[in-house]
Amino acid sequence: MPIITLLTDFGTADGYVGEVKGVLAKDAPQATLLDIAHDVPAHDVEAARLAVARYWRRFPEGTVHVVVVDPGVGTARRCLAVESDGRFLVGPDNGALSPALLFAGAQAVSLAIPPNASPTFHGRDVFAPAAARLVNGAALATLGEWHPDPVIRRTPEPVRRADGCVVGQVITVDRFGNAITNILSLRVGDVLLGARVLPLRRTYAEVAPGEPLAVVGSTGLIEIAVRDGSAAVLLGLARGAEIVFRGRA
Amino acid sequence: MPIITLLTDFGTADGYVGEVKGVLAKDAPQATLLDIAHDVPAHDVEAARLAVARYWRRFPEGTVHVVVVDPGVGTARRCLAVESDGRFLVGPDNGALSPALLFAGAQAVSLAIPPNASPTFHGRDVFAPAAARLVNGAALATLGEWHPDPVIRRTPEPVRRADGCVVGQVITVDRFGNAITNILSLRVGDVLLGARVLPLRRTYAEVAPGEPLAVVGSTGLIEIAVRDGSAAVLLGLARGAEIVFRGRA
Amino acid sequence: MPIITLLTDFGTADGYVGEVKGVLAKDAPQATLLDIAHDVPAHDVEAARLAVARYWRRFPEGTVHVVVVDPGVGTARRCLAVESDGRFLVGPDNGALSPALLFAGAQAVSLAIPPNASPTFHGRDVFAPAAARLVNGAALATLGEWHPDPVIRRTPEPVRRADGCVVGQVITVDRFGNAITNILSLRVGDVLLGARVLPLRRTYAEVAPGEPLAVVGSTGLIEIAVRDGSAAVLLGLARGAEIVFRGRA
Repeated sequence: MPIITLLTDFGTADGYVGEVKGVLAKDAPQATLLDIAHDVPAHDVEAARLAVARYWRRFPEGTVHVVVVDPGVGTARRCLAVESDGRFLVGPDNGALSPALLFAGAQAVSLAIPPNASPTFHGRDVFAPAAARLVNGAALATLGEWHPDPVIRRTPEPVRRADGCVVGQVITVDRFGNAITNILSLRVGDVLLGARVLPLRRTYAEVAPGEPLAVVGSTGLIEIAVRDGSAAVLLGLARGAEIVFRGRA
Repeated sequence: MPIITLLTDFGTADGYVGEVKGVLAKDAPQATLLDIAHDVPAHDVEAARLAVARYWRRFPEGTVHVVVVDPGVGTARRCLAVESDGRFLVGPDNGALSPALLFAGAQAVSLAIPPNASPTFHGRDVFAPAAARLVNGAALATLGEWHPDPVIRRTPEPVRRADGCVVGQVITVDRFGNAITNILSLRVGDVLLGARVLPLRRTYAEVAPGEPLAVVGSTGLIEIAVRDGSAAVLLGLARGAEIVFRGRA
Repeated sequence: MPIITLLTDFGTADGYVGEVKGVLAKDAPQATLLDIAHDVPAHDVEAARLAVARYWRRFPEGTVHVVVVDPGVGTARRCLAVESDGRFLVGPDNGALSPALLFAGAQAVSLAIPPNASPTFHGRDVFAPAAARLVNGAALATLGEWHPDPVIRRTPEPVRRADGCVVGQVITVDRFGNAITNILSLRVGDVLLGARVLPLRRTYAEVAPGEPLAVVGSTGLIEIAVRDGSAAVLLGLARGAEIVFRGRA
């Protein structure tokens, strides 16, 4: 059975996700619906992009990912359907789909908006129907016009300073309060947070409870963490905070 | 495969929803379980009703909706099973199922309470087993006695003032902080919040960030929103707040 | 279709659960994935254990329960797969699986860690693949070495005082603010909270709104509740708070 995954910032209590699932259950009854998340911070396209980067290629080919964090709903921003590495994605053209769009061979179309679509709920009226068509076997090209230049968002690159240190930043804070940076760890070194040197460890539990550390996270990026605590709270870290990586010579 | 949807105020962390799903997985192994929400505010029957109104008819015929927000669990309040427009709903008789009960041709029965049911957990011991029976093909009439007068809750009607304005109210605030009113927009007009006139726009992004506006929401009701912000927080709106709609002559 | 359930403290917004579901969708495409919870308080192994106690045996035989609340991820703590009463469970060896481990006939193996597993994400790289192998029919013994002494956590036992009272404690507070104790109610008696005697009632709604009471909860344990309110907030109850049960002579 083909899979449709759902990531939104709708929350679930209001019933919006229920409406989307109802459309999918009716229009694609043979598909399996899997929730990814509905508690993405409201309008946080960047958080959606980072989550999509984690999961989109882990699912089998043929999976359709619905990704709707859409502060511009109803405006002139495009509605995208994307085919990339055998998976499909639908969602607003705001950069959340960038991980798939940047993959070699990706193709995108701009979805036609049905005339009776609510201008405030494209998740229900545009993206769910498009996902159903894709999972039912429609070719991407039948869903809309080729769209050659979708919005792309990228993780900022760390920069190398004159002294050889790499200056990066926190790109997101996860539920545990771990601050995930844009620094790919390829070698041994020190992580500096202001004047503080954080030990680089393999796992969170290799320092004493309450102590800060750096680890290489599950996507290869350096994370700042506090054992049994929140680095975000205890170290005052939020998206954009500067982190310096000092490689050992 | 027939569908069972689940809406509760149980949260998920305590494992109550897990128990309900276990009962359904055992008693209705061929059904597909779909979460609608488990984060309805505790005991908020009105929020459940408004969510049910959104999704119950969007699912295919034969779907069974389990709706358990149940502050009166174990008391003399009835346990309902409802058949309406080809769908089924089960839940306590407190008005949350009104959208289906008010649909033409709806029928309701009062479920028998199994003797060993916990008086504090009818979701697990009454409603899940009833949902399983329905999805397995049992006729509604076999689940209990006809119940001719279930509790009905209705959205309050706006009233027309002597000056021709329509006085409505906020019926709920969604996750984005949008305040949804009981005013159906059928024509152009102004939305007044106290002395303030809000522009009526097609989409949220048609005013500057931080500015308030009114839009026609996805069910046709007028919503008060703030672009990229929460109208509830920034305008101090909560359920029951008065909103005035002034139609242009 | 066999079932895989998921309980974690990952939250969903970061995409970690999405990664786990992707692995399962690829490696066990015929399994049905059911969410139990992803909002267990971060690192709260005890909360996970109490939830597991509620649901693990309610699912059909053959179900695989993935339970990952794992503050010690990547350390020397073992990774377990358990077979108990026809169900399977996988998760870190920290006591969260105790309800199944304490069931007669339970068997456990210590999972081999794949060499390329991230030391910070065993949910994705160890437990999801193990769950997929089990649901695909692999025998428990093929997943690792027998592990004779897994970590066991138990609910603390209440103690009987010289005066005949039973002194128990709050073992958890649920989403409604109900404080669940370790006192099994087998007879009529009074529940004392400090100098206060709480009425023992069948259901929450048998006292006036705002009034405290005790009820026998859905697992047979005495709960302290406040009608239409949170006992945790209004009575200042948290895990570990002392509760005295005074049986009537």
